[in-house]
Amino acid sequence: METLPTTFSAEAYFETQPPPPTVEQDVQSVRNFLRQQQENRRKVVLVTSGGTTVPLELNVVRFLDNFSAGTRGATSAEYFLKAGYAVIFMHRQFSLQPFSRHYSHSTNPFLDLLEINEPPEGSTAAPSISVIPSKRDHLLEVLKTYKSVQKAGTMLTLNFVSVNDYLWLLRAVSQELSVLGKEAMYYLAAAVSDFFLPREKMSIHKIQSGKGSLHIEMDEVPKILKPMVAEWTRKGFVVSFKLETDDKLLIPKAQDALEKYGHTLVIANALHRRKFEVAFVYRTHYTDSSASQFAESWVRIDLEKNPEKEIEEDIVEELVKRHKQWVEL
Amino acid sequence: METLPTTFSAEAYFETQPPPPTVEQDVQSVRNFLRQQQENRRKVVLVTSGGTTVPLELNVVRFLDNFSAGTRGATSAEYFLKAGYAVIFMHRQFSLQPFSRHYSHSTNPFLDLLEINEPPEGSTAAPSISVIPSKRDHLLEVLKTYKSVQKAGTMLTLNFVSVNDYLWLLRAVSQELSVLGKEAMYYLAAAVSDFFLPREKMSIHKIQSGKGSLHIEMDEVPKILKPMVAEWTRKGFVVSFKLETDDKLLIPKAQDALEKYGHTLVIANALHRRKFEVAFVYRTHYTDSSASQFAESWVRIDLEKNPEKEIEEDIVEELVKRHKQWVEL
Repeated sequence: METLPTTFSAEAYFETQPPPPTVEQDVQSVRNFLRQQQENRRKVVLVTSGGTTVPLELNVVRFLDNFSAGTRGATSAEYFLKAGYAVIFMHRQFSLQPFSRHYSHSTNPFLDLLEINEPPEGSTAAPSISVIPSKRDHLLEVLKTYKSVQKAGTMLTLNFVSVNDYLWLLRAVSQELSVLGKEAMYYLAAAVSDFFLPREKMSIHKIQSGKGSLHIEMDEVPKILKPMVAEWTRKGFVVSFKLETDDKLLIPKAQDALEKYGHTLVIANALHRRKFEVAFVYRTHYTDSSASQFAESWVRIDLEKNPEKEIEEDIVEELVKRHKQWVEL
Repeated sequence: METLPTTFSAEAYFETQPPPPTVEQDVQSVRNFLRQQQENRRKVVLVTSGGTTVPLELNVVRFLDNFSAGTRGATSAEYFLKAGYAVIFMHRQFSLQPFSRHYSHSTNPFLDLLEINEPPEGSTAAPSISVIPSKRDHLLEVLKTYKSVQKAGTMLTLNFVSVNDYLWLLRAVSQELSVLGKEAMYYLAAAVSDFFLPREKMSIHKIQSGKGSLHIEMDEVPKILKPMVAEWTRKGFVVSFKLETDDKLLIPKAQDALEKYGHTLVIANALHRRKFEVAFVYRTHYTDSSASQFAESWVRIDLEKNPEKEIEEDIVEELVKRHKQWVEL
């Protein structure tokens, strides 16, 4: 069988790889959502969150995965909602979600928040369930915000699993969101695979379990940010993330990305410092994507003084300010 | 660098691959747990659940994964607890767990079960939180069982992520559990990778992102059931699972496994029928692991008549009966 080229352009990618079956329905729900937000003159942010998978077989049992619990995305989405934004929360199935993230089944299981109150002796009433006093205040706060977001209809949740789902969905949602022009923000916090297995190669590269070892040969995922900025998002405020383990590479890699893709801002973070320190990297001429002078500013929090503080609160505050300036330019 | 053999014996595996740092601590908690259960003369079942990962890099970002939400294991564990067994629930981090499985963040988020009751006007009391009436009965039932299991101390939860964690932990727990002899059951419902990347090869096989494609070459995971039955579990009642997509292969593959590993019983299920039909495959001479005459019996439920029924209820009921006979043999 013919071997395909190993580097796909975004265009070639979408011409050859099949869309997920749910994308049309998702686009419809995005359209309805955006209509409501425009009526209420809300700014909208697309938050992507969690890792992506690369299925290795057509009837998927095995896949390649990128690790991401989705903490950054889920936490940031909450603060965007608090800041008055409407949020399209596009996340990996089973990754953390805004609000429910506070009660992960492993670290803070919600069944442990509840207690059973037996009715007084002789009563025929059923036992009631209540929240244990020490947990009540926090749960009440989370629940209040959650209910008010539901009531206001300011959050739309979309799912992806594979990198193919992600790419198709990102393109479709970006194209819809572009009607908002500068009022739209794109906050790309998902951890996206650099590699994928093209549909046509799946049967060739099926797992050979007899021979005692497994060979997989994958192709590079197209750099989607480029067409996203140049074609799909018209003037949108596009924020990407750069995660590195080597501190020295952090700023240069972020500048490279700005140069290559021409978007607005990179949030650079080192793997082991990401909970309390990130750098905003951007061009000094904010709206001139051909300029190649860069600036950086740091967001830092002191977790020793305030262990409950979440850095996403300050990241979002800073972005909201910058987005406002961007809209007024 | 020298190339390792691609098929590891279990012995060679444990000699060359490093144990996870938590295994000693886990063994200690298993010992304490078993002491309590023996005092109360409870039978103990080890339930393994969820998929395993194969990390591709030493600082793990990318890994190979087997899909499994962990439904079979989490559901079965609940029924074993109801049947009076003590359960060691050894599961993939973030896979479903007994009790909380009813309230997955995606399909039945627990925040949607709760409502806020504002205090009467003029009152200075804080709002209270209650369970919405339509969900109360079900939650009360789940919560009651959960609390009684906690109180009785009949469930111990252990975590794994990688296939290496799983193998080390399975060996260590089996060896501890073997003190119970015939009273111990091993219910191996986890979906374990057939392949892994030996520690020594990790740096060689690091991901080459420059060249436009990714090559991974993996080795076969040793067949752990063999030493488990022959060496670690002394007379334990060992149940494994066989999942196939091709119905015709179901029974022959299950018989092959019994022949190869000499354990007690295989539960064979077809991917798309596993929620309502499984086959128990076993030797006609139950305790003679060299006999090669096989029998099968089917467990089926009718989901049209009773859509709430879980097949794990009948699977566990049947196993409890067979385990009782096994102990009395």
